[in-house]
Amino acid sequence: MSINSVLCRDLGLQYPIFQGGMAYITTGKMAAASSNAGGLGLICSSGLTAADVAREVAVAKTLTDKPFGVNLMLQSPEIEKIMQIVLENKIPVVTMGAGDPTPFMPALLNAGVKVIPVIPHVKAAQKAAKAGAYAVVAEGTESGGHIGEMTTLALLPQVLAAVDIPVLAAGGIADGKSMAAMLLLGAAGVQIGTLFLVADECPIADAYKQSIINAIDTDTIVTGRGTPHVVRALKNPMSLKYAELEKQPGTQAERDRLADKASVKAVRGDVEGGCLMAGQISGLIKQGGSIAAIMQRLMREAEATLAGAGRLLG
Amino acid sequence: MSINSVLCRDLGLQYPIFQGGMAYITTGKMAAASSNAGGLGLICSSGLTAADVAREVAVAKTLTDKPFGVNLMLQSPEIEKIMQIVLENKIPVVTMGAGDPTPFMPALLNAGVKVIPVIPHVKAAQKAAKAGAYAVVAEGTESGGHIGEMTTLALLPQVLAAVDIPVLAAGGIADGKSMAAMLLLGAAGVQIGTLFLVADECPIADAYKQSIINAIDTDTIVTGRGTPHVVRALKNPMSLKYAELEKQPGTQAERDRLADKASVKAVRGDVEGGCLMAGQISGLIKQGGSIAAIMQRLMREAEATLAGAGRLLG
Repeated sequence: MSINSVLCRDLGLQYPIFQGGMAYITTGKMAAASSNAGGLGLICSSGLTAADVAREVAVAKTLTDKPFGVNLMLQSPEIEKIMQIVLENKIPVVTMGAGDPTPFMPALLNAGVKVIPVIPHVKAAQKAAKAGAYAVVAEGTESGGHIGEMTTLALLPQVLAAVDIPVLAAGGIADGKSMAAMLLLGAAGVQIGTLFLVADECPIADAYKQSIINAIDTDTIVTGRGTPHVVRALKNPMSLKYAELEKQPGTQAERDRLADKASVKAVRGDVEGGCLMAGQISGLIKQGGSIAAIMQRLMREAEATLAGAGRLLG
Repeated sequence: MSINSVLCRDLGLQYPIFQGGMAYITTGKMAAASSNAGGLGLICSSGLTAADVAREVAVAKTLTDKPFGVNLMLQSPEIEKIMQIVLENKIPVVTMGAGDPTPFMPALLNAGVKVIPVIPHVKAAQKAAKAGAYAVVAEGTESGGHIGEMTTLALLPQVLAAVDIPVLAAGGIADGKSMAAMLLLGAAGVQIGTLFLVADECPIADAYKQSIINAIDTDTIVTGRGTPHVVRALKNPMSLKYAELEKQPGTQAERDRLADKASVKAVRGDVEGGCLMAGQISGLIKQGGSIAAIMQRLMREAEATLAGAGRLLG
């Protein structure tokens, strides 16, 4: 008995689990490990030059013969070149976050690439579906990194009611029970970020991983509300200072200095000065392991939870 | 086949559904309708004098012989008198929101009252469990009215991992699928607010009900972040103006004038000047009906969803 998802059939996956693209983190090596483990690995192009993306794609190709994807950063100054690399390498799936995907859709669709925008509300899902997206990822505000306002539980059913394409759930999922709950609601699969941050193959510093393992439920904070860059990260001197400065007018320059390269600092282990992006579900995460072990735990628990659902009736 | 919940056995309910206490809305009459429908009706004491509470309890008693509860507003100036009314009337269940419940616990527990705090994070759940609470309601930030920061999907599993008492899920639940998903995650039941706002027996003005029916997913707004009164309500001239004033220092007096009696105005149908508290799931709500019909829809769909969970495996 295993989970039966249209994503597995259409994308050639063993498990309907996407390893979310995370800037400066999900390299070709990590994406290949996720794909080899049975899910869909995604190389994040955010912060990378086109040459960087070409290199990461090449690395992934040497490490896996399974399908993997690229997360496109639509605002990248090199987006056109990165698109070319995606097409030349016959990448089967791309995801994309903020920004309007429609100008990029025709070239991708013509080449047979499955386009999966990450969307924060129903209108974005409808727009993506109309433009030919294969699926959307409905991502809740509990996620780490750049976020919208809707929560996963409020967003997913409203997106499912509005579009006829597959919908993945993202945000707040770090165990098999939550995965099962999302499938029961109608999700075709899940995209997971924070849980994979603590995986052995994740290239962030151990101190960042340990900050997630140590976090309790209320240890994340949101900065940038009311701006285009709303970010959830762990509370630390950097994020708390940033939030404090937000209450003081005229501190934009100081905030910009604080945020400068903060993601890269986090990846390198600066847990005081870095921006440790992570979701609200961090408090549930107490264990790492290989990506394969994490995916198998998720699947075994999700399958057992669904198989046992009838026991709630009596 | 019906849902098998400890709440039904312990509280004498047919369905593990609480009709959440909502200030100026959930009267004795509405609570009795919810209890007669098979769930647990809750009279909200917020904004009521002790004499008002006594009257609403008396009304409910004439309309139902099923158990119903009272939602205690711990900051009420008449809280001691309201406690006496709860005890004299042998109310079997009380819920309570913001504030420290521990000073009130001994008298309630001695009288055999089941105390169920509504909690926004794990520490509050642990404190409630330690003080003798029968259960907690884990309420996510997608809820309408006064809210915390954790989302339902991120909060529920972390609370379940931290306490050994029953946990109800609240926030983002307006259909049977979402109820099933929460039960699958381990919730003993659900507390629902927004969906019951559109019920026939709900005493708010039709214009308020219609605003919920008309809402799309992104039509709520949160005001008061960073203060003790964080509130989610529908976007309307009142809430949008309030949010605008929040960006301008020195406008507290103007904000206070705007918020004055705004809940009462909403209940009476002032959809421009009232505070139309409602959750993010409003966008999914397209249908009213009697409380009994709503509860039966929820239960039938939840049962069918759980019974069909095995079909996700193949």
